[in-house]
Amino acid sequence: MSIAPDSAVRAFIADHRAAFLDDLADWLRIPSVSADPARAGDVRRSAAWLAGKLGETGFPVAEVWETAGAPAVFAEWPSDDPDAPTVLVYGHHDVQPAAREDGWHTEPFEPVVRDGRLYARGAADDKGQVFFHTLGLRAHLAATGRAAPAVHLKLLIEGEEESGSPHFADLVRDRADRLACDAVIVSDTGMWSADTPTVCTGMRGLVECQIDLYGPAQDIHSGSFGGAVPNPATEAARLAAALHDEDRRVAIPGFYDGVIELTAQERELFAELPFDEAAWLRTAHSHAVLGEAGHTTLERIWARPTAEVNGMGGGYQGPGGKTVVPSSALLKLSFRLVAGMDPDAVQDAVRAWVAERLPEGIRHEITFTGATRPCLTPLDHPALRSVVRAMGRAFEQKIRFTREGGSGPAADLQDILGAPVLFLGISVPSDGWHAPNEKVELDLLMKGVETTAYLWGDLAESWRDR
Amino acid sequence: MSIAPDSAVRAFIADHRAAFLDDLADWLRIPSVSADPARAGDVRRSAAWLAGKLGETGFPVAEVWETAGAPAVFAEWPSDDPDAPTVLVYGHHDVQPAAREDGWHTEPFEPVVRDGRLYARGAADDKGQVFFHTLGLRAHLAATGRAAPAVHLKLLIEGEEESGSPHFADLVRDRADRLACDAVIVSDTGMWSADTPTVCTGMRGLVECQIDLYGPAQDIHSGSFGGAVPNPATEAARLAAALHDEDRRVAIPGFYDGVIELTAQERELFAELPFDEAAWLRTAHSHAVLGEAGHTTLERIWARPTAEVNGMGGGYQGPGGKTVVPSSALLKLSFRLVAGMDPDAVQDAVRAWVAERLPEGIRHEITFTGATRPCLTPLDHPALRSVVRAMGRAFEQKIRFTREGGSGPAADLQDILGAPVLFLGISVPSDGWHAPNEKVELDLLMKGVETTAYLWGDLAESWRDR
Repeated sequence: MSIAPDSAVRAFIADHRAAFLDDLADWLRIPSVSADPARAGDVRRSAAWLAGKLGETGFPVAEVWETAGAPAVFAEWPSDDPDAPTVLVYGHHDVQPAAREDGWHTEPFEPVVRDGRLYARGAADDKGQVFFHTLGLRAHLAATGRAAPAVHLKLLIEGEEESGSPHFADLVRDRADRLACDAVIVSDTGMWSADTPTVCTGMRGLVECQIDLYGPAQDIHSGSFGGAVPNPATEAARLAAALHDEDRRVAIPGFYDGVIELTAQERELFAELPFDEAAWLRTAHSHAVLGEAGHTTLERIWARPTAEVNGMGGGYQGPGGKTVVPSSALLKLSFRLVAGMDPDAVQDAVRAWVAERLPEGIRHEITFTGATRPCLTPLDHPALRSVVRAMGRAFEQKIRFTREGGSGPAADLQDILGAPVLFLGISVPSDGWHAPNEKVELDLLMKGVETTAYLWGDLAESWRDR
Repeated sequence: MSIAPDSAVRAFIADHRAAFLDDLADWLRIPSVSADPARAGDVRRSAAWLAGKLGETGFPVAEVWETAGAPAVFAEWPSDDPDAPTVLVYGHHDVQPAAREDGWHTEPFEPVVRDGRLYARGAADDKGQVFFHTLGLRAHLAATGRAAPAVHLKLLIEGEEESGSPHFADLVRDRADRLACDAVIVSDTGMWSADTPTVCTGMRGLVECQIDLYGPAQDIHSGSFGGAVPNPATEAARLAAALHDEDRRVAIPGFYDGVIELTAQERELFAELPFDEAAWLRTAHSHAVLGEAGHTTLERIWARPTAEVNGMGGGYQGPGGKTVVPSSALLKLSFRLVAGMDPDAVQDAVRAWVAERLPEGIRHEITFTGATRPCLTPLDHPALRSVVRAMGRAFEQKIRFTREGGSGPAADLQDILGAPVLFLGISVPSDGWHAPNEKVELDLLMKGVETTAYLWGDLAESWRDR
């Protein structure tokens, strides 16, 4: 019997909560800001601290893995059941920059508990969410009386997530053998709210490009030449405007090829969420919603592909006017992809669409600067069902489903390791990721501990039964 | 008999050519760069020099007129025929900046004659073209034996044209009584070429604006929010793209209201010009022509209104990518107007069109930064016929017609003084206005002298006969 009984788990957690929080506070005191070269030593210290703590937790393997940048931490604890599935937990030990003068009420690297919340940079993103796995695992072992986890457990905690994970894919590729797994659990996301626990089932992919348009060899006089030669700023605008049709659907031929449409069940599950559009608009700092016709806001940000103008420029942008036909213009575009879309195919479609639309006399260059695949775990995937059951026991509530509109390195794990990615996060939107006064709700943090205490046993069982 | 006989005029000009060129060279040595505060004294010196020289020429009135910036020069010589028309000649005595190291083969303010050309900053733009009026007037008087010109002659030579004429409209308004006239002759333009003498019959007007679009209160994450809220960069692009329809006609409702279409005769006259599109494209530094369907390039730049994107910007324009929905974007637009169009009506049309096209959630501000009326002299206007006849006698060739695609302070004279504006210029495209090694062709300069020697008598006669 590897399923941990709830009462034993809760008793174990209650007994160890204080020491767990003390340990977490020690880790949060290390300002592991990967974006700040002056903090490189702190990032290394953070990695070493974590590897040490994972060793203390019982992981027979706990190593610091060097990269061309900041180090990651890898730990492994095989199950005593050789047929058990292998699970890889992903998180990161680096944090966003933070300084008291940015609006912090207390020192960002001096953790403080106030009103049931732990305030510190990294409390939610992502040290708190990495660390709940340690106590959860111990509770799983203690409550089930096991000497080893019910699953083969691996942890990969990177050190450059807040700097864009520049060496992560290489690291995963180089170490693919040791990272091999049946499923990836990402603990670097959030829930809908404290009242509405949710599990995230996917992230969108991303294709980014810059399009440079060249017209006259230099800026020319709009009185002498305007209206008679092509204007690259006008053509850039016409391209950007042609991204969407009047229904705000992306109008690039072939863009939607392969898109896995939402099922009626998924749409219903999204619609069940207590979505407050006015409140959401406030978080978006926006004044109205606008998007693809026939879809709700949640569908638009979670489950529909998009085309966005991230930047554009051309000609004179200073004060006053300057009557020129500019010599060049640029567009920076990004496309969010959903399951079923292939970044390479999207790049090809964009390339063909641009080339086809420009008039004679406008030369263009298109540069793709990044591509991330979408990931999506089907609602009936056995590992997802286990996460939902484990969370349900911890939260004693129905667990609902969300997705993540953004894109992240989790997709590299999915692609390189060929394993489904699941998201187990207990952070809530008010936690203030990347903002001053970042915090984690202690009750939710302990629900994370409890969820993982139940998860490994459930997952081992459902894997056997699948 | 006030028409000067050709032989007498030519003999007088030949006798005085050397002294005239010496005088012009003296003036060109004064570096009257209005854009350079360090040259303010030189601009004043240029004005004083010119007023003195006009006094020597015989003008009973020759004054320096102060403005809030650089001074203008006004001169007046009434006709002895009280019923004669009054003509106001416009030009400017300030020049563009110039420095030897910009690529000049000789010092820009040390005039040099080489191969029948006078090289100096201002030789063509505009001192040479102002100064030919002095010798032309003397030839007119000498050849006709008159003590005063056949027309009431006024000159207004401004000192800030190369700085955008910031105080010119105010000056004309303040001095409208003294500037009152029946026609304005602008000598600050050019001809088609040395082989194809032409007279310019109009300039386009200009409306300029900046449109600022505001979306989210700050840049927001395109993964979290993109595709579900309006993006001001996208909306700016959609506006700019909607400026033109597929025929590249301006698509703003009401924009073409009142446009005086080209007559069949005018189109034929344009078509008669030896236009070399490939050569024109080289001067435009462009690689293809593109413009309103159904019109030639010359019609597009001279006689059709246009909408041009002079600048645009929004979001992230630095290296690499940044996945944001930007909080704002801007467009800088200019519209060239042709005869029959009213700048106020165009501003109203643009304002209404912008307001109507933006979605909810995008706030906008539109700022108009300048408006210049178009001017056009009908081909059968008696003063234009006089200019054509006088040029025809001087050049001994058929005089053809052009227009100017740009816009200039001449329109202020037309509007404030209520007089038609005619253009008498002898510069050619190779003269290098605003460029290093500016020059004037001495033969053409003397044709300017000769034209004005014939012009005043012809104009007085045709005015009587009109």
